[in-house]
Amino acid sequence: MKTRITELFGIEHPIIQGGMHWVGYAELAAAVSNAGGLGIITALTQPTPEDLAKEIARCKEMTDKPFGVNLTFLPSFQEPPYPEYIQAIIDGGVKVVETAGRSPEKYMPALKEAGIKVIHKCTSVRHALKAQKIGCDAVSVDGFECGGHPGEDDVPNFILLPRAAEELDIPFVASGGMADGRSLVAAMALGADGMNMGTRFLATKDAPVHDTVKQTIVEADELQTRLVMRPLRNTERVMKNAAVDEILRIEKEKGADTQIDDIRHLVTGAKGKMVLHEGKMDEAAWSCGMVAGLIHDVPSCEELINRIMGEAESIIRDRLMGAL
Amino acid sequence: MKTRITELFGIEHPIIQGGMHWVGYAELAAAVSNAGGLGIITALTQPTPEDLAKEIARCKEMTDKPFGVNLTFLPSFQEPPYPEYIQAIIDGGVKVVETAGRSPEKYMPALKEAGIKVIHKCTSVRHALKAQKIGCDAVSVDGFECGGHPGEDDVPNFILLPRAAEELDIPFVASGGMADGRSLVAAMALGADGMNMGTRFLATKDAPVHDTVKQTIVEADELQTRLVMRPLRNTERVMKNAAVDEILRIEKEKGADTQIDDIRHLVTGAKGKMVLHEGKMDEAAWSCGMVAGLIHDVPSCEELINRIMGEAESIIRDRLMGAL
Repeated sequence: MKTRITELFGIEHPIIQGGMHWVGYAELAAAVSNAGGLGIITALTQPTPEDLAKEIARCKEMTDKPFGVNLTFLPSFQEPPYPEYIQAIIDGGVKVVETAGRSPEKYMPALKEAGIKVIHKCTSVRHALKAQKIGCDAVSVDGFECGGHPGEDDVPNFILLPRAAEELDIPFVASGGMADGRSLVAAMALGADGMNMGTRFLATKDAPVHDTVKQTIVEADELQTRLVMRPLRNTERVMKNAAVDEILRIEKEKGADTQIDDIRHLVTGAKGKMVLHEGKMDEAAWSCGMVAGLIHDVPSCEELINRIMGEAESIIRDRLMGAL
Repeated sequence: MKTRITELFGIEHPIIQGGMHWVGYAELAAAVSNAGGLGIITALTQPTPEDLAKEIARCKEMTDKPFGVNLTFLPSFQEPPYPEYIQAIIDGGVKVVETAGRSPEKYMPALKEAGIKVIHKCTSVRHALKAQKIGCDAVSVDGFECGGHPGEDDVPNFILLPRAAEELDIPFVASGGMADGRSLVAAMALGADGMNMGTRFLATKDAPVHDTVKQTIVEADELQTRLVMRPLRNTERVMKNAAVDEILRIEKEKGADTQIDDIRHLVTGAKGKMVLHEGKMDEAAWSCGMVAGLIHDVPSCEELINRIMGEAESIIRDRLMGAL
């Protein structure tokens, strides 16, 4: 399939793996890229810029296809050494960076000078327009459905994607709610040039996470995610578990007075690693999209991407053309 | 376009006008049906079964195409005379009924015996399966985006439609977030057989509502709707206005203790008529879908439906086939 996104990133299929903390290692990124999508290494999952440099080198040994690096700008007091992480990306010859969180404006000159294409994750049309204005090459438009941080507007992709298409000149991919060929064709009908998948790639053979995580996603229906940290205006969609029940109890009790310190021990951070790597499923809240309800198996990335593209083609040629 | 829904209802285009209180009069229903969609008269907008009989007769004078009647089963102490309304529908020779609210189970034998096709509005997969089980011919699957009552699960159509497609044998239309050819093709890619539009038909020349209502929809972006009555577990998506601000203030103050009597004077009821017919926009909360953000003009139903079908065909033939 050929879209503005496949052209921009030099990839075969318009499918991007979303940046995921404790998940986006070289193994997964290389598997997605080898299957014709765009794999993404998560920069901050690596404890230091030197470790990121090694992870990029490791990924290059596993694939000769393009892959990217996710760089999340956190609202944090102890800021990670972003310039050094960016230098590791540049020195590693990586040509695509997915930015998320706060605006990447400050780092755009360094990234553009190195010839890097920047795709920024946005949960609203106004943020997408801002990203376009500061020179991002593409955006990833994140609907209310998405795992992780959907923002505070609660606009699902059926509205957000066509609104983005109305306003943007740069290409964009749909993120949140994306699982299969049906999602891809629907997103493209609404104006997107491809799709970004997080949760779906988490439940693949290549994802370096505990099998229990994958099984939990397969068993979940569309009603098993919850929104936490809403009182902090830092809403996160997570899989329901004992930690999430406790967060929601505290948030209900404290209401608008909830502080991050009340729940810090229960939200994804260092503990996310215990969930994702060790399968201690109730240890902390962990990001999961509502799309878990559409995930019923654990294929390899190659099987998954081939299936999606086959399904998409059949929907277009048979189902949609057939209705005309 | 030919789908299971066009076949089931004997209509030209897979587009259904949603039942809307104080809006679904013969004028609008006939305009939608004459344009090749399925127009819907709202039964309970007529004060008595006799008035409904007259409205059906009036609609038949305006169109010889199929149209339907919406019958909403309200959670109310003073129950409307449903058997008499149903008799008026049967006697009027109407062949399609859209049911909403509580399950239509009790009235299914009467409706089926009269050869009436029943399409039930559902906000979850489990309700859709129940509707299928009790003999409904189709369902209208209502995502979190929708105006009016989205239920309490908050599952948007990008997830809800493919989930419904996985579980249902009967055909279904997508409802909530539907505005144009893009929506129609996306909904069909996700497994729907057509779409139901409420808010979009409200902003047409044929809708018998005050011009200020139509203008308010045209001017709204996707951020202007609010959810009220959540503490009552009777959530309704409405257009933000002074009455809604007041409801939200009361709900915030009273929290889980909010009673219907606290806000009854501000929610749609008799006062909805003052908003919709007289354009007194701040008088009460009135249902409006998030899709208002995608509505930029006030065409006739014929212009609208022709445009949608042309756009849908171009998306399929040019945009989607072109990407392969």
